Amino acid sequence: MSEEKQPPIEPISGTIVPRYAGPSTFCRLPELRDVPYCDVAMLGIPFDSGTSYRSGARFGPQAIRQASRHLRTNFHPAYDTEPFKQLQVADAGDVACNPYNIEEAITQIEVAATDLFTKAKSIVSLGGDHTIAVPLLRAVNKQVGPVALVHFDAHLDTWDTYFGAPYTHGTPFRRAAEEGLFNDSASMHVGIRGPLYSRQDLDNDEELGFKVVHCDELQTHGVDHVVKRIRDRIGDNPLYLSIDIDVLDPAHAPGTGTPEVAGMSSRELVNIIRGLKGVNLIAADIVEVAPAYDHAEITSLAAATIAFEMVNLVACRPS
Amino acid sequence: MSEEKQPPIEPISGTIVPRYAGPSTFCRLPELRDVPYCDVAMLGIPFDSGTSYRSGARFGPQAIRQASRHLRTNFHPAYDTEPFKQLQVADAGDVACNPYNIEEAITQIEVAATDLFTKAKSIVSLGGDHTIAVPLLRAVNKQVGPVALVHFDAHLDTWDTYFGAPYTHGTPFRRAAEEGLFNDSASMHVGIRGPLYSRQDLDNDEELGFKVVHCDELQTHGVDHVVKRIRDRIGDNPLYLSIDIDVLDPAHAPGTGTPEVAGMSSRELVNIIRGLKGVNLIAADIVEVAPAYDHAEITSLAAATIAFEMVNLVACRPS
Amino acid sequence: MSEEKQPPIEPISGTIVPRYAGPSTFCRLPELRDVPYCDVAMLGIPFDSGTSYRSGARFGPQAIRQASRHLRTNFHPAYDTEPFKQLQVADAGDVACNPYNIEEAITQIEVAATDLFTKAKSIVSLGGDHTIAVPLLRAVNKQVGPVALVHFDAHLDTWDTYFGAPYTHGTPFRRAAEEGLFNDSASMHVGIRGPLYSRQDLDNDEELGFKVVHCDELQTHGVDHVVKRIRDRIGDNPLYLSIDIDVLDPAHAPGTGTPEVAGMSSRELVNIIRGLKGVNLIAADIVEVAPAYDHAEITSLAAATIAFEMVNLVACRPS
Amino acid sequence: MSEEKQPPIEPISGTIVPRYAGPSTFCRLPELRDVPYCDVAMLGIPFDSGTSYRSGARFGPQAIRQASRHLRTNFHPAYDTEPFKQLQVADAGDVACNPYNIEEAITQIEVAATDLFTKAKSIVSLGGDHTIAVPLLRAVNKQVGPVALVHFDAHLDTWDTYFGAPYTHGTPFRRAAEEGLFNDSASMHVGIRGPLYSRQDLDNDEELGFKVVHCDELQTHGVDHVVKRIRDRIGDNPLYLSIDIDVLDPAHAPGTGTPEVAGMSSRELVNIIRGLKGVNLIAADIVEVAPAYDHAEITSLAAATIAFEMVNLVACRPS
Amino acid sequence: MSEEKQPPIEPISGTIVPRYAGPSTFCRLPELRDVPYCDVAMLGIPFDSGTSYRSGARFGPQAIRQASRHLRTNFHPAYDTEPFKQLQVADAGDVACNPYNIEEAITQIEVAATDLFTKAKSIVSLGGDHTIAVPLLRAVNKQVGPVALVHFDAHLDTWDTYFGAPYTHGTPFRRAAEEGLFNDSASMHVGIRGPLYSRQDLDNDEELGFKVVHCDELQTHGVDHVVKRIRDRIGDNPLYLSIDIDVLDPAHAPGTGTPEVAGMSSRELVNIIRGLKGVNLIAADIVEVAPAYDHAEITSLAAATIAFEMVNLVACRPS
Amino acid sequence: MSEEKQPPIEPISGTIVPRYAGPSTFCRLPELRDVPYCDVAMLGIPFDSGTSYRSGARFGPQAIRQASRHLRTNFHPAYDTEPFKQLQVADAGDVACNPYNIEEAITQIEVAATDLFTKAKSIVSLGGDHTIAVPLLRAVNKQVGPVALVHFDAHLDTWDTYFGAPYTHGTPFRRAAEEGLFNDSASMHVGIRGPLYSRQDLDNDEELGFKVVHCDELQTHGVDHVVKRIRDRIGDNPLYLSIDIDVLDPAHAPGTGTPEVAGMSSRELVNIIRGLKGVNLIAADIVEVAPAYDHAEITSLAAATIAFEMVNLVACRPS
Repeated sequence: MSEEKQPPIEPISGTIVPRYAGPSTFCRLPELRDVPYCDVAMLGIPFDSGTSYRSGARFGPQAIRQASRHLRTNFHPAYDTEPFKQLQVADAGDVACNPYNIEEAITQIEVAATDLFTKAKSIVSLGGDHTIAVPLLRAVNKQVGPVALVHFDAHLDTWDTYFGAPYTHGTPFRRAAEEGLFNDSASMHVGIRGPLYSRQDLDNDEELGFKVVHCDELQTHGVDHVVKRIRDRIGDNPLYLSIDIDVLDPAHAPGTGTPEVAGMSSRELVNIIRGLKGVNLIAADIVEVAPAYDHAEITSLAAATIAFEMVNLVACRPS
Repeated sequence: MSEEKQPPIEPISGTIVPRYAGPSTFCRLPELRDVPYCDVAMLGIPFDSGTSYRSGARFGPQAIRQASRHLRTNFHPAYDTEPFKQLQVADAGDVACNPYNIEEAITQIEVAATDLFTKAKSIVSLGGDHTIAVPLLRAVNKQVGPVALVHFDAHLDTWDTYFGAPYTHGTPFRRAAEEGLFNDSASMHVGIRGPLYSRQDLDNDEELGFKVVHCDELQTHGVDHVVKRIRDRIGDNPLYLSIDIDVLDPAHAPGTGTPEVAGMSSRELVNIIRGLKGVNLIAADIVEVAPAYDHAEITSLAAATIAFEMVNLVACRPS
Repeated sequence: MSEEKQPPIEPISGTIVPRYAGPSTFCRLPELRDVPYCDVAMLGIPFDSGTSYRSGARFGPQAIRQASRHLRTNFHPAYDTEPFKQLQVADAGDVACNPYNIEEAITQIEVAATDLFTKAKSIVSLGGDHTIAVPLLRAVNKQVGPVALVHFDAHLDTWDTYFGAPYTHGTPFRRAAEEGLFNDSASMHVGIRGPLYSRQDLDNDEELGFKVVHCDELQTHGVDHVVKRIRDRIGDNPLYLSIDIDVLDPAHAPGTGTPEVAGMSSRELVNIIRGLKGVNLIAADIVEVAPAYDHAEITSLAAATIAFEMVNLVACRPS
Repeated sequence: MSEEKQPPIEPISGTIVPRYAGPSTFCRLPELRDVPYCDVAMLGIPFDSGTSYRSGARFGPQAIRQASRHLRTNFHPAYDTEPFKQLQVADAGDVACNPYNIEEAITQIEVAATDLFTKAKSIVSLGGDHTIAVPLLRAVNKQVGPVALVHFDAHLDTWDTYFGAPYTHGTPFRRAAEEGLFNDSASMHVGIRGPLYSRQDLDNDEELGFKVVHCDELQTHGVDHVVKRIRDRIGDNPLYLSIDIDVLDPAHAPGTGTPEVAGMSSRELVNIIRGLKGVNLIAADIVEVAPAYDHAEITSLAAATIAFEMVNLVACRPS
Repeated sequence: MSEEKQPPIEPISGTIVPRYAGPSTFCRLPELRDVPYCDVAMLGIPFDSGTSYRSGARFGPQAIRQASRHLRTNFHPAYDTEPFKQLQVADAGDVACNPYNIEEAITQIEVAATDLFTKAKSIVSLGGDHTIAVPLLRAVNKQVGPVALVHFDAHLDTWDTYFGAPYTHGTPFRRAAEEGLFNDSASMHVGIRGPLYSRQDLDNDEELGFKVVHCDELQTHGVDHVVKRIRDRIGDNPLYLSIDIDVLDPAHAPGTGTPEVAGMSSRELVNIIRGLKGVNLIAADIVEVAPAYDHAEITSLAAATIAFEMVNLVACRPS
Repeated sequence: MSEEKQPPIEPISGTIVPRYAGPSTFCRLPELRDVPYCDVAMLGIPFDSGTSYRSGARFGPQAIRQASRHLRTNFHPAYDTEPFKQLQVADAGDVACNPYNIEEAITQIEVAATDLFTKAKSIVSLGGDHTIAVPLLRAVNKQVGPVALVHFDAHLDTWDTYFGAPYTHGTPFRRAAEEGLFNDSASMHVGIRGPLYSRQDLDNDEELGFKVVHCDELQTHGVDHVVKRIRDRIGDNPLYLSIDIDVLDPAHAPGTGTPEVAGMSSRELVNIIRGLKGVNLIAADIVEVAPAYDHAEITSLAAATIAFEMVNLVACRPS
């Protein structure tokens, strides 16, 4: 399409407008309505009615956008990319989700994401709690069928129900498995750690098709080993990448709802992501940022950085 | 009943166990299971799925109890009471509410409160968001029929629905009015202030039977005037007292979900309550403490103090 | 102009998009580019290179906008207004100011405000430190000539220079006096308190034409008295209203650069502003919000509320 | 003494060294060793082993000094004073007190203060918890005999013992009464409020000679009335003024160990102090600032302001 | 004893009562009075009068219990344990210690722990400052004689006296050595780092029998090496494990009294503890959590996790 | 010089005056005016007008000094030094810099540092933002000519101009290169990470003579490798060491202006510095501590520790 030959509209430059000023879009990118085409849409999903402990991720998208002001985005040496020159990236705003009705909210997210895929080739979502992965996976499925799924988290998130509710932030990947939304030979949890609700949790999880990279493997085997395990598992399948910020240690991400000690450092996480250069990333989410528990934006800055890394992965996607 | 002739079991004394030590019950009172009878039960209701802006009141009961350690409770000169010697007060623990299903949670609260009234003459509830007032009023109604209702709040809380939900923290008193849970000739909002969602809000509210004491009347007419307006309105009807901590100014109560500037000082609020000495208080709630937004416990200390004042009001109830 | 007959484009409704979601404009208003005409433009001025103690007001506009999400704006009973139905209000974004060159920044602000007056009838500015009042007054002067000036502040802000710099947050009203930007028979400081840098400060200030309402007059004479003094002073002159958030007591506005104890409560300040209903407000600023020192947004919520009150004053302007 | 004819060495000027820079003495005053004579010595007493709830006042003196950087001190219009020109004021540093032995610490404080009175005419102490009032009163007594005592506090501080300890922050004024350190016809508590540990507390207190100005008298009778009650009580006796920062409401002073709601505003407190202009102030303390619980220095700024007001009272002392 | 054949009373389940609700005991376990027998008692020791810098650990036990709500405890894969099914664990409440008399407090702790050993086979203590290790070691000694001692800390804690006091948080292990409370051929410090008060500190420490694993060995040799050094040192001796939370880096444990940079990550610490599976743990403490300096509970969550790991070690104890 | 034979005046001992008490100089060292000679002067430079994002480093020197109270300084086993016995170290106070005029401030710093070199052999500066490195390097140059330069930072700080300003915290090392202030065959950045403002940034930087040790080399090659690279690069040239605290991960240093995730741990940084024992350190700075964003002093404690390590490096300087 000739229209796409236009160079992308880039974010406001930090040399013209100081980074603490100007629009509150992700990285001060243009809004979706302002671009003639869109390679990657950043989508806020301020929903946290699925949380089981500390709530507050409804304020996550705003906080991630605010922290993203501070990112330097012109050139990323780890990927050798100039992502906002190579891709048209735009901020698609927030999905308006019903805070009082989880099922309705899930439908609203699915509808919004499905619609957004008519305007954007890829979506990077800014959560919100982990409940939102189900409708996002549904929308992705409509585009490309079952995807490889890599899920960074301290927790498995494959419980069945919680207080009778099938859709909560502890259950998305069981629902996704039941609906066949991902390729169960290309699915993986990364960063799992700590005690469990039940001796059966890991077995049940395995039955759903997941492999697990425990967080301690980083301590014993290092980043490159973890990267290799992930790449071997997902191959060149179209990929959905879901990152719960609590995969980071609470020192690196205090602002989240269910922190678990002994997690990854932000350097480990970022380097694993950078190790995935070349995978076929279709869509991604970064979830569970709860700003009321953050300090000096360290959690939302980590999340903003991760979202930006995701865009770079898209920029390196095999064509 | 001869058993009731026993003097009450009092809280752990601060001269024997330092106030920062010992049990985490309200004011370090005995648990309900440890007392042979109960005049006032303190009931935690950790529920916040009805919030519309900042959530987190689910952690309110714990925070209020923790702050209550610090209260001096032996003698209250404003009431000339020794409340924990005059009444057997006990901590009834928390209602287990479903965080994912508002209707179910409301039922759980109603059932728990109704059951508690078989064991305790009065209930002081520690919220939780304001949604919980509906089931509490239902339980009170079963005891004494429609009650006088005095509602301290920055907001009217008489919207119809919000995102289609009939039960939220913005709607309890419309629901209560519809169900006839309070005596509409003895109902009053106190502390209302600020702009409104609609020009009709005040009219609609009046149709439900409420009178309004605007917060600015404190500035212009003072505490005694406000006390008189309330006492004139409620007479000697059995009273339900519902206090949203956001009736206080954000300076006095930052830890809440929907703060509104230009509110009451804690001195004004406490003195209004003290002015109600002698009213026929049956049950009460203090709601909307969101500890994640609090600082140095000032909000939870205010709420703990208010809950203790409520107990003193019960101690002064006409016999 | 027939175009202006269209009803204003209103903010996103909180009944459709939850208040924590949606655009980050002031009160989720439309952007200036989205409205066919504009009665009041909200203008962010993220500049704080004029501060002398705690810096950080450069993050003020963003914080005020974020806090403004929470305001209820449909109907304001104190003014009997539906401001966003009566006026087209829009967010004009931020002025890009040079953080390293105060003079250049002042020029940038003056140019931006002057240009904005070609698109909007009134401007409410969100600071930024108090330095910004000078270029704003210049722009206003080009519209209407010298204005009445009411300045709420703990400090006089009429020093001559500071470290040799003529333009700092302690000097704007001396510069403005020297340039004849305001009508010296209709100028007033309100809320002044505390000790001074010099015995001459008050005398010098008086020579510039200012009258002073000391903060203690609120304690002794009350809000109505202060309102009357202000109204008597300004008459029906076109008015510039400049509010330094430190006019509030640190309990009500901790998030500011030069806090001074013994200040106004937010209730006093808001009620004074409401008492000014009917004045001829042309432009206004709310400055010195330093979010790094704020807690739970109480300072930025106060500032957002004040900015909204200013819009209501415009809505009540005599026609 | 001719040496005293020299004008005082003043603090570092804020027009030469920015207020956030330069020495960490109180108000950037000279150290005691740098002045040829001394009218008022500021004495830090970092001791908090007498606390019963939240500790941390050991960091109080440093925090008060840090906050004092921000004060404007050249001219105080409420007293018509230029205190640091009229008096030689100097910072005497901190008393080194044993944190593990209360009795030894009390002796150390008494020795240090007694010694300091050989070098300075008046002492303003920066606490530290309220235990320190006993040794300070002893040292004052050695100078002028029993003094009038005005004690601002939420609490009476006249318990007998606590956990067997005679010297704690809840007992200083009983010890002082027993030792005859103050004139019991000129002693007064101001700001008392809230419930009590025992019905006898007020009676016991009265037996010790104290009169009480309850905090609620401010609400009902105002600042001038309270000022008059104090002045009537103390007459022209030499005065010791002891101010526990918790006399302020927690909104105004969150950073303290035993906060009590419904307190004074900082405006009320400051205006009462200013109303005492002309009393015969010999020594004073400001205690119970616990910085770990403070926010944005509002508590330590209040304490620093109060300490500065005390210096102004000395400057207005009848000669 | 047939009574012990009953399966343990488990904590309140998070599937029935949300984890933010319900009792405030450690992990919502039963109280000691509610169990017919007890394998491990969790004992709070809210005492901090032995601190030398930041105080506040008196609030540690409450904060650790509150953070423990959030732990998943049913199954621990690192130990292959279901600890609360295998052992009857109960919360024994707090020791009431005199805050004003260190010696008396030590006696109170010793008496309480000695008594508790008549009811419980093992004790895990929640501090409190490190002073409490002495009376705990005394009580343990009465049970099993001198124990192996593994002490995780940034500091040696083997000073002689501090300000003349023999019992402070810097001296417990010298006192313990003098009293022969541990087996000096099986004692070890782990995590020591940073500069020292004296060149003699390490020599003196060695004379007391300690070996030292410096924190830097983790950087250079890794977790397994450190685990081996510890296991080689302690053999199968009955073990007392004492963990000062400041062994963690301030990033992982800001909420403590004497933080020291360059410490362990929580992942390192947890993995070392897990490496000790099979040791003969008799009793343990986790100390020096000062909640006033914590953020988002990351320190108290780390401490709660460590306490839970300790219980798992007991569950794996050789029989 | 015979005068220098006197043993150094050491800091106040923590066994005589508790560490939270006493003077606010760095490590409670003597002031410069109190020592007969000086080996190392600690110099505060409270200047932050060169910041581009979060300001507030003007409060850095005070915060670093306050945190330094807590350091144990008698003996450092990593260097086998007793630094304050081997060297006379003194606190030289703060440079008074004009906050409104960057050029003037730079001159003031250069003059102050040049003057200080007449009194002290080495200078360790406490920033302040990174702008201050230019005048410090100029002063150093006057002493020893061009120096080796090791620069720890997340960012290159070799931009040309920013908003037209040649001197900002993003440009010092380009200015220094242009002026020939360092030996371009012995210069190095350490800890660089993250995306860049431009693809040319690294090339431009290389042209200025810098080698880069990327932060990820720590993950892959370890501390010893990084130490070797640095030592190989600098040889025995006189060295200027400049450490931006943001070289640390935000988990370890939240209190800074331009945080970047995936940084060094404090253990890595401290061990690299210790690995430099024996280099010929002439002067050093630690910059960009912004206390308003710090928590529980973890950032300022890290900075204080680094400054103390720098003094130890001087103590180990080859003679």
